[in-house]
Amino acid sequence: MGKEGDAETIYDVIIIGGGPAGLSAALYAARAGLGTLVLDRNPAAGALGYAGRIENYPGVPGAVRGSELLAVFRKQAERFGAEVRQEQVYGVDFGSEPKRVVAMEKSYGARAVIIATGAMGRKPSIKGEAELLGMGVSYCAACDAAFYKDKDVAVAGGLDEVIEEVESLVRFARRVYLVTREKELSPEQRAALERLPNVVLKADSRLTAIEGQVTVKGAAIVRGGAEERLDVEGVFLYLHGSRPVTDFLYGTLETSPEGCLMVDENMATSIAGVFAVGDVRCKKIRQVVVSTAEGCIAALAAERYINKREKIQPQWSH
Amino acid sequence: MGKEGDAETIYDVIIIGGGPAGLSAALYAARAGLGTLVLDRNPAAGALGYAGRIENYPGVPGAVRGSELLAVFRKQAERFGAEVRQEQVYGVDFGSEPKRVVAMEKSYGARAVIIATGAMGRKPSIKGEAELLGMGVSYCAACDAAFYKDKDVAVAGGLDEVIEEVESLVRFARRVYLVTREKELSPEQRAALERLPNVVLKADSRLTAIEGQVTVKGAAIVRGGAEERLDVEGVFLYLHGSRPVTDFLYGTLETSPEGCLMVDENMATSIAGVFAVGDVRCKKIRQVVVSTAEGCIAALAAERYINKREKIQPQWSH
Repeated sequence: MGKEGDAETIYDVIIIGGGPAGLSAALYAARAGLGTLVLDRNPAAGALGYAGRIENYPGVPGAVRGSELLAVFRKQAERFGAEVRQEQVYGVDFGSEPKRVVAMEKSYGARAVIIATGAMGRKPSIKGEAELLGMGVSYCAACDAAFYKDKDVAVAGGLDEVIEEVESLVRFARRVYLVTREKELSPEQRAALERLPNVVLKADSRLTAIEGQVTVKGAAIVRGGAEERLDVEGVFLYLHGSRPVTDFLYGTLETSPEGCLMVDENMATSIAGVFAVGDVRCKKIRQVVVSTAEGCIAALAAERYINKREKIQPQWSH
Repeated sequence: MGKEGDAETIYDVIIIGGGPAGLSAALYAARAGLGTLVLDRNPAAGALGYAGRIENYPGVPGAVRGSELLAVFRKQAERFGAEVRQEQVYGVDFGSEPKRVVAMEKSYGARAVIIATGAMGRKPSIKGEAELLGMGVSYCAACDAAFYKDKDVAVAGGLDEVIEEVESLVRFARRVYLVTREKELSPEQRAALERLPNVVLKADSRLTAIEGQVTVKGAAIVRGGAEERLDVEGVFLYLHGSRPVTDFLYGTLETSPEGCLMVDENMATSIAGVFAVGDVRCKKIRQVVVSTAEGCIAALAAERYINKREKIQPQWSH
């Protein structure tokens, strides 16, 4: 934590997390003249780092690898003066001034903190999932359903979570296999499924592997103990493993029952000067461009917060 | 409005406005498989079309002309199947099913409508403003203040609107001229200004021209009838002319006292199936990436709206 008497840089803003939300926040914070540090556990570990091709980020035409887009975000942030360090954060102290962010070897001081740690509890864990992400494996039916016109696809996840996704898929796909561990359906679930054409329910089933070399060619499931193979070209996964990463906060900030951080329209949490952006915050739509926009909003809000405080508490200003 | 008996294409989504918000909405709507039409009055008339260089759009490194970025957004939308037509919209009928959007030569039917007409009541109107936008002329102090370290700048606008912007600027600029038409300051305004160093108030003044060839080299003001020249390298404009463009709605949707459209977190207006995104909606931060994110959110919400309605009102589904 630094020896006593060490001169210490107090950053204007520390951003925890180096995905699209955090790096966009860094870009805007640095460009606004704020001393900006990004602490990123692992540039390859986030949802975008894992992503295969991104085709729908406005402003970046064609298909680009997730890791390449991430590298562009990072270069832009660094170009405007943000510092990016590969360090894992283990704790925070938002009660002190400056606020403190604790990493393995030392702790850092900051006047404002932006939390952008994403939702990553679950790594791609199904055999074939990581390799075929973006090549037939998708986490968003509303985004990708149209690519499966007259094709067969599988959807895996909890029933309540996936029925709305299946609604998007049946508009395009020839057949939708719904793979779920649940054994019994509620009357509401049964009614919802009966309204949907071309759905084949695989209850009491577990997805074990996604097959294919360049693109998805099939999926393996275990159903009531027996193996089965589904002849599908797309697999949509809703394996509720994408838990917001908030362990290092140790309850400092309130979370929703789902474990996400609640913020206002400026991305501000309940603690003044602490913001949350990207998939760690409570929201419905998880798209790269939504995360970069949130980073922008939080950085400009942090700038105003720091400015304002200077006026109110002049002891911090010079 | 089409002869009786004409076969008519009913679009899933019509997007009114072809700026970053509208074109991003078109990209996501088309990619989600929705029949998508963009009606754009004039590709060069929006805030981004006017913008000089954009340096802070995450994912697009370096400086890019606003019009070029706009062309990329448009190409992406068209590549996914959206149709873009240059037509001005004169009216709407959101009470009918399908909803109707009325242009000069004909009217169009759509199941959902996304309003993305921006805030453009005011065109760049100060001499030199359009030519030097992004080259010393800025509309956002929080974004651009850091480029004016130890330089002199001018800020023009209503006092209550600009004081917060001046707070951002005094952290960097050597001297900030505050040019305002107002003659008398309230005690609060006076107190706020007294707290800020290096501000030179030019009350009862009007900005008449911005000078410079490639970059801003000065500004001309008329003060109490007499001309004056300010030796500045930056001019920040807050001439409250950027009025949300809602005239074609004829009061169909409720607006705030400022004239902007109010939406929920899904960009939905008070009328089901009608959404509003970008600078026409009420918001604080006007940045390109925020507008593209809103387009994404509205398009996916429109997809769900259309999907849902099929289930509830099966007469529309086949």
